[in-house]
Amino acid sequence: MSELRRDPILRRWVVIAPEREAELAPRRWEAPPAADAPCPFCPGNEALNPVEIAADRTAAGWRVRVTPDQQPLLRIEGDLGRRGVGMFDRMRAVGAHELVTDTPEHTRAWADFTVEQMARLLAMYRARLLDLGRDPRFRHAVVLKNHGAVWSRFAHAHSHVIATPFVPKRLEEELTGARAYYRMKERCVFCDQLDEELSAGARVVASNDGFLLVAPFASEHPYETWLLPRAHAANFGALPDRALGPLAALLVDALARVRTALDDPPYSVALHAGPLGGGDQAEFHWHWEIVPHLGRELGMEWATGIFSNPVAPETAADRLRAAR
Amino acid sequence: MSELRRDPILRRWVVIAPEREAELAPRRWEAPPAADAPCPFCPGNEALNPVEIAADRTAAGWRVRVTPDQQPLLRIEGDLGRRGVGMFDRMRAVGAHELVTDTPEHTRAWADFTVEQMARLLAMYRARLLDLGRDPRFRHAVVLKNHGAVWSRFAHAHSHVIATPFVPKRLEEELTGARAYYRMKERCVFCDQLDEELSAGARVVASNDGFLLVAPFASEHPYETWLLPRAHAANFGALPDRALGPLAALLVDALARVRTALDDPPYSVALHAGPLGGGDQAEFHWHWEIVPHLGRELGMEWATGIFSNPVAPETAADRLRAAR
Repeated sequence: MSELRRDPILRRWVVIAPEREAELAPRRWEAPPAADAPCPFCPGNEALNPVEIAADRTAAGWRVRVTPDQQPLLRIEGDLGRRGVGMFDRMRAVGAHELVTDTPEHTRAWADFTVEQMARLLAMYRARLLDLGRDPRFRHAVVLKNHGAVWSRFAHAHSHVIATPFVPKRLEEELTGARAYYRMKERCVFCDQLDEELSAGARVVASNDGFLLVAPFASEHPYETWLLPRAHAANFGALPDRALGPLAALLVDALARVRTALDDPPYSVALHAGPLGGGDQAEFHWHWEIVPHLGRELGMEWATGIFSNPVAPETAADRLRAAR
Repeated sequence: MSELRRDPILRRWVVIAPEREAELAPRRWEAPPAADAPCPFCPGNEALNPVEIAADRTAAGWRVRVTPDQQPLLRIEGDLGRRGVGMFDRMRAVGAHELVTDTPEHTRAWADFTVEQMARLLAMYRARLLDLGRDPRFRHAVVLKNHGAVWSRFAHAHSHVIATPFVPKRLEEELTGARAYYRMKERCVFCDQLDEELSAGARVVASNDGFLLVAPFASEHPYETWLLPRAHAANFGALPDRALGPLAALLVDALARVRTALDDPPYSVALHAGPLGGGDQAEFHWHWEIVPHLGRELGMEWATGIFSNPVAPETAADRLRAAR
């Protein structure tokens, strides 16, 4: 039975999830499901995956479909049950863990999506964030796409929407930094960075009217990029319809560049948006982070928090600009 | 030319190290150096690795030897050269990156060290931390041992001592948490946790007069353990000689348990000690952290900072207690 536990030193919630132990077997995720087993995410097999949270449908059938993860890290039912155990703090592993079937096609990389397809998917994320934001138990929601077989339990093109009753460590660090900057300057640190990158130029990969793709100054990972709206916005749920197309176009463009420049590496794409409760509207600035996984081991980063990155972001930007 | 860059949001220094780009080639580290090339760390080959920082010697030769890493992440020469670039901050990649030859034997796991051997190695780390603490440019030093071929550039048994002109992110998070707890309680959070674990019992793996091995309450990684001194101490450099034997005995014991319980997995061992400047003496408590690398991919942890762990620390402690 899984539960959340809070580390009193790092002040971070951890999901203790014993039922996931089988996943420890090395390389279990390297083999995609056997091709002769029916895919529970393909059209016609909806009965294998019957609970539908949301869908984008036409007369011809669904185009995007959201279902609960059948091995969820967090479960939707129940209250948080916060309590102390000696000096420690626990709560139940409550949250939403939704699986988004990105497209009816069994395999299709985001880099191959049409702009319309990607815009539909982005509209679905927006709708899920708005809906999850109505649940007062949840503080934050993230969207996560993992590309490349090693990272996935399912072969079908899919992504995750995860809402949590705490602010995940990584987002909390960003929020803390953004708040401190705002207190000092009364300006958004992302807006300032956007201006700085536009004026420096060397780390800009691509841009269009509404959005900018940049290899950030202190990139933690080789070829890390961020996709940001030029206009300040913390709440992804408030993204206007007219922005869906330009955002989709630049996201597909970014992933096509990563594929061309790095020979189709596995990668993760995550949406970092402001808290669900609508706080930090002036301080935070939503953005997508894209990180290819280039097979580097992270012993030192884990042990020490000394991050090292062998590709200067200017170099990354240069190569990604050329990669189309 | 590598340099340090500070992320204005996460407030974390990153080493931008373009000369390490060759390491990106996947699985480059899986093959240890060809067996017919002379090992620069074996006795008799000192000319291949001539600069000696420190050594533990008898008439028969050296038993532990410290040399500069020949591909250092940080370089010992020069001042920090802090400067601003637009809104960003840089400094030079100054620091110490020392390679410790743990033993003259080409391969010998820490789990197979005698207590005397391990005590000598610990005494060397203590001496290095004291020496590096005299350099006013350095704020922190970490000791890191990676076991298992994938993690290593060299086949010879070795470890790292790394001193930095900043507090590494991971240590800074621990220090921040420990300071906040101390402000609230006027007690060390590690001391409280030690008492709590001793009274709960379920997560204690092993102990002796001076030290405790425990699977921490909110373990981030499966089978993560910490080795702490029972008596409060922030400065590893002040470790008394009489403590070297018991600490060495429990450290070797811990690694033998990990090997037995998990079939000789790769692992990392890191010393987290207080800052070099002698600050936070009341707040911080040095400890070794031991984490086996069990082949789990960290997509979600990276993207979201939602950590999950499929082995409850009580289970880990139970299995590690049985594994001797």
